[in-house]
Amino acid sequence: MASPLHFRIEHTDRGSHARVGRVTTPHGSFPTPAFMPVGTRASVKGLLPELVRATGSEIILANAYHLMLRPGSDLIARRGGLHAFMRWHGPILTDSGGFQAFSMADINRIDDDGVTFKSIIDGSMIRLTPERSIEVQNDLGADIIMAFDDCAPAGPDVGAARLRTAHERTVRWLERCVAAHARPTEQALFGIVQGGIDLDLRAASAEAVTSIDLPGYAIGGVAVGEGPALIHRVVEFTAPRLPADRPRYLMGVGYERDLLVAIRSGVDLFDCVLPTRNGRNANAFTRAGRLHLRNARWAEEDGPIESGCDCAACGGGFGRGYLRHLFMAGEMLGPILVSIHNIRHFQRLLLDIRRSIREDAWSWLFEAWPVLQDPEQAAPSLHT
Amino acid sequence: MASPLHFRIEHTDRGSHARVGRVTTPHGSFPTPAFMPVGTRASVKGLLPELVRATGSEIILANAYHLMLRPGSDLIARRGGLHAFMRWHGPILTDSGGFQAFSMADINRIDDDGVTFKSIIDGSMIRLTPERSIEVQNDLGADIIMAFDDCAPAGPDVGAARLRTAHERTVRWLERCVAAHARPTEQALFGIVQGGIDLDLRAASAEAVTSIDLPGYAIGGVAVGEGPALIHRVVEFTAPRLPADRPRYLMGVGYERDLLVAIRSGVDLFDCVLPTRNGRNANAFTRAGRLHLRNARWAEEDGPIESGCDCAACGGGFGRGYLRHLFMAGEMLGPILVSIHNIRHFQRLLLDIRRSIREDAWSWLFEAWPVLQDPEQAAPSLHT
Repeated sequence: MASPLHFRIEHTDRGSHARVGRVTTPHGSFPTPAFMPVGTRASVKGLLPELVRATGSEIILANAYHLMLRPGSDLIARRGGLHAFMRWHGPILTDSGGFQAFSMADINRIDDDGVTFKSIIDGSMIRLTPERSIEVQNDLGADIIMAFDDCAPAGPDVGAARLRTAHERTVRWLERCVAAHARPTEQALFGIVQGGIDLDLRAASAEAVTSIDLPGYAIGGVAVGEGPALIHRVVEFTAPRLPADRPRYLMGVGYERDLLVAIRSGVDLFDCVLPTRNGRNANAFTRAGRLHLRNARWAEEDGPIESGCDCAACGGGFGRGYLRHLFMAGEMLGPILVSIHNIRHFQRLLLDIRRSIREDAWSWLFEAWPVLQDPEQAAPSLHT
Repeated sequence: MASPLHFRIEHTDRGSHARVGRVTTPHGSFPTPAFMPVGTRASVKGLLPELVRATGSEIILANAYHLMLRPGSDLIARRGGLHAFMRWHGPILTDSGGFQAFSMADINRIDDDGVTFKSIIDGSMIRLTPERSIEVQNDLGADIIMAFDDCAPAGPDVGAARLRTAHERTVRWLERCVAAHARPTEQALFGIVQGGIDLDLRAASAEAVTSIDLPGYAIGGVAVGEGPALIHRVVEFTAPRLPADRPRYLMGVGYERDLLVAIRSGVDLFDCVLPTRNGRNANAFTRAGRLHLRNARWAEEDGPIESGCDCAACGGGFGRGYLRHLFMAGEMLGPILVSIHNIRHFQRLLLDIRRSIREDAWSWLFEAWPVLQDPEQAAPSLHT
């Protein structure tokens, strides 16, 4: 059976597991490592698709959970699928809804068959199973779809038994996802490794999940509150246990340094709400750290968020003083401009990291991106 | 003294006072009749300047009242003025703050010198006089600035004495505006005719205001709640009383038919919040009337707001079903796309009206724009 996804590794770093490559999907190809902006509800918040593309983004993420609840995946299927509906003609990845069902919803029941929870829209009871999640994602028609997994919460109060159940269930559910997948020649299904911060469980999960032949694999259950040191430990441990010839996707991570650590562990694909969520909150990323644009110190500042940045905000000459004014006045253009800048910030970081891999040269990267040297970066929950 | 504004009339309609022309300002020229989108707080809500330009808009309006309160006109002056601050490099017109001070503010005192009111931002007492309004507008640096006038409220409970006082004050204040204007070779000051719905007072105001030689004149105090029939009567009466060789500007009006009536009375310049305000409320203009995009009937509709429209929303293929989804989900992109469409709707109307004037041919216009035939259109308060 022809896979809808091709992954070609072009160069592997000498000193780490990092590699540059290219993923080809039915809606186009993109270089890896790649960063996907988040368009949870079929829109990258505040941005026309052409503005998303102008940040250098070539693949975006949308969310099966939110779209299933509203407007309904069947409605989107009748519109011709997500690409046609939202006018994004490049590759799309949809998350399965597992993470959201377990983390956002008022859960009524979890059993071996699936999870029942209350809709965040109207309080109605929703049943999500591996089969239903895949049906929803088949409706949406993204190029990459994700397995429906049991996302046990993180933290010291979660017992080993619950984590083991989640791991075992995730593997069984993955088999059901594969069996339910109705469009395997059009949509690449990725499996998800769970296991929390328990490395033995991560090893067992990676072994079981990768025993099922799939076009790509993801590391889930990371950046759910455990802090950067544990994120890095889990990713460094897990990524090399995934097949080297398939794209590896680290879900919902993260800050610049988290991405770098993951890329050097062999990860190829990322999504994170940080650029857009922080953008809406007047929080701008720069190579030297973050700026809060509501701060009065910027009121009289004509310079851009970051000099030398080629995004529509910085390159367009919008000064920090103007951006501050927009946020103070509650104007939509503030979130729009800073979201654009922040997404471009991550795309420029990925550009530079790809160059470092290709040229086997890293020291210039740390000079160009002082923020990569900061070991103190927090990594709170960053998911959609 | 060289005027910063040139107005050339290129053709006058045979059957009406309508004319096509071109206004040239220090920041470029634009064809008339012209429609200005409103960027009250130095931003056309939700739209990057390049998206505003892409609607065919060549001049925009900003508001001295709002910008004086926040971030302060002195701050904008230090940024290099409004054009540099908001990155709009074409012509800008600023309203004087008169209308807002009288209509929006909690007024503390009106006297012959000016008005004292509470700031809508922090409740502090603000004093606005003709001299102060012009100083603010000199700071902002717009190409066209407006006189500070006494905008008596409309309605049956406003006595003739109050209207007469307002008229007389407006003329005296205009003289003070002229005297206070520090940048007359860079910024064109327009006088404003008041008089409410009292045609005798309108005649007196027009005569007194136009006795002062200025590069342009405006009709103020219209569309403040009096309904379309009275709007049309006042405009038809007043516009021809303004010098034919100067641009005539009808402030804060209005719906499509209101614009047409005004243009046929000889008006050249319009601003209105309708396209953006309605756009934010899911209310889309079409040639056949308005659509409310939250309506469930559009959920499964793939067609654009208006077929044949070349705006970024319709031309970009965004369907009514997707737009409805964006509004139901509270996504910013809904207001953005419908604002773009609505501004383009008005710019396409003006394009077609200019063509009708140029070709002395009107019947096709009414066929192409059924909405122009609707005499029942309401005209509530449409100001910034």
